[in-house]
Amino acid sequence: MNEINHQVRLAARPVGLPKPSDWQYTEEPVTEPGEGEVLVRVQLISLDPAMRGWMNDARSYIAPVGIGEVMRALVAGEVLASNHPKVAVGDHVTGPLGVQEYAVVHGDAVTKVDTSLAPLPVYMSTLGMTGMTAYFGLLDIGKPQPGETVVVSGAAGAVGGVAGQIAKLHGCHTVGIAGGQEKCEYAVQELGFDAAIDYKTQDVAAGLHKECPQGIDIYFDNVGGEILDAALAQLARHARVIVCGAISQYNATGPMRGPSNYMSLLVNHASMTGFVVFDYADRYAEGLREMAGWFAEGKLTSCEDIAEGGVQKFPETLMRLFEGQNTGKLLLKIADV
Amino acid sequence: MNEINHQVRLAARPVGLPKPSDWQYTEEPVTEPGEGEVLVRVQLISLDPAMRGWMNDARSYIAPVGIGEVMRALVAGEVLASNHPKVAVGDHVTGPLGVQEYAVVHGDAVTKVDTSLAPLPVYMSTLGMTGMTAYFGLLDIGKPQPGETVVVSGAAGAVGGVAGQIAKLHGCHTVGIAGGQEKCEYAVQELGFDAAIDYKTQDVAAGLHKECPQGIDIYFDNVGGEILDAALAQLARHARVIVCGAISQYNATGPMRGPSNYMSLLVNHASMTGFVVFDYADRYAEGLREMAGWFAEGKLTSCEDIAEGGVQKFPETLMRLFEGQNTGKLLLKIADV
Repeated sequence: MNEINHQVRLAARPVGLPKPSDWQYTEEPVTEPGEGEVLVRVQLISLDPAMRGWMNDARSYIAPVGIGEVMRALVAGEVLASNHPKVAVGDHVTGPLGVQEYAVVHGDAVTKVDTSLAPLPVYMSTLGMTGMTAYFGLLDIGKPQPGETVVVSGAAGAVGGVAGQIAKLHGCHTVGIAGGQEKCEYAVQELGFDAAIDYKTQDVAAGLHKECPQGIDIYFDNVGGEILDAALAQLARHARVIVCGAISQYNATGPMRGPSNYMSLLVNHASMTGFVVFDYADRYAEGLREMAGWFAEGKLTSCEDIAEGGVQKFPETLMRLFEGQNTGKLLLKIADV
Repeated sequence: MNEINHQVRLAARPVGLPKPSDWQYTEEPVTEPGEGEVLVRVQLISLDPAMRGWMNDARSYIAPVGIGEVMRALVAGEVLASNHPKVAVGDHVTGPLGVQEYAVVHGDAVTKVDTSLAPLPVYMSTLGMTGMTAYFGLLDIGKPQPGETVVVSGAAGAVGGVAGQIAKLHGCHTVGIAGGQEKCEYAVQELGFDAAIDYKTQDVAAGLHKECPQGIDIYFDNVGGEILDAALAQLARHARVIVCGAISQYNATGPMRGPSNYMSLLVNHASMTGFVVFDYADRYAEGLREMAGWFAEGKLTSCEDIAEGGVQKFPETLMRLFEGQNTGKLLLKIADV
């Protein structure tokens, strides 16, 4: 091969909001796969709030991206060459292959997906890690019961939008919190939330009080900060708070804002439980089977917000997450699907 | 009867630390019990951090004490007269009879205790609500397993001292956090903690790191604030944080300090669950049976710190809790036991 692989590597650990100079652009020739390896042409890159955490030099659920390493990212792509018995040329795969145009990895590191059942972007969204995050967080931690009230922050975002739909499928009253009228309308009209609260123009505490007259049984939190505190103040007895993320705090330069209303857990015999999707790796097959069934039956809407421009657009596309500019799953197209 | 009942009533809602003028002293003649009622001479009053919350005009697990009402308190006393078939003159009873010398209440509102099995102060401590709080919080929420590491704050206090002992009885490695060398020695030597950290002179985070090399499996929190954050930073995977209290924050005049390290719940798939002892009212008999058994077998030490001086000493005795001056269960003696 004479192709060039354009890559985005971590150049510096950001302080606060990442800036373009926190990454560097490199290129190197595409290499042939070795024994057991496959060569993948990357078509889509997943943009995730968690990426901000991976850039910090801190103990977490996964090692930080090293300075000089290709920026970690989940991707979807097409197999161009394979020395692995279970992966064939032309297969579509997903995996943590990083922000680059080509990747050579062991065949065991990728997951084959069937694009005859769903388009490739859906495997980066509702039928990918995003969907698994919503599925296991809501069902395993939240344990929703019919008639319960489920509140989701980041309701028009990737995970929140799926979590709200799964809650609705389980017979819950669902209330979304999102930024802006457009996202709120999207949450109600496209995703089926029973109500949505616009945190940019409405008083969230008052909105929750109105929309959750019996209190909140499950709060699926993607944002942290003030909205988490507003939700804690409205918990019902035995409520479950699911800590999925805290995007409002990821770029804080000081300590994160802790939930000052956490004593609501005591008053209401409630719990707050955190997780990352990787905790459920041994149950992905179960989650995917059920989610794919709902998707095939038309019970689950998948929405992707696909940015164009290739790897060079990675930094500014990532910033869209922190500016709340995406609706649905934010992806960056690297090559035509 | 010609006796006078001296009482302490709530006079004002405190801002920050309570001051003596937040209460008023009243007296009234002792009355005869009516149909189904009993007259109790109060001997001991329980001093609890929760009392501070009861003085606030805020929605909580229990209604606030009204201005002008006798200050709510759990007490132990002797029955002087009874019109209730299940309560006899001379019986010892406990119940929420308030800060006063005598109380006339329905017989169903008191619980008979057997002072031949344990002294009366123990029924206000290890075999009372204090013990039940430690028992249900640790066992029902914490679910300790042999070999796990259990950290308890307020380890030389009423609930913490019992929680540490129960954890030890379940084969756990126990680490207490307390204020001052004397309390730390008491926690290790009298209560059997494996180690104790003095938050007044030691770096709690460093101490926890040293004493919990495998991380904290269960953190039983009575204090909140910085110590809660230090514990969160050391959680093991699948850790359980038990929110029993937050005495460091009860007199805050602004918002409480929320735990800024709460994302440790996400990283470690951990949970933080709150409760109050009243949640377990239908299981007190079970808790009391098991605790009384351990007490009788000498497996459980009960420690009471009994202040003298009668109801007039209530305000300054309560302040001892917030100043960390008590070791073990703080009681105020109203009449000889």
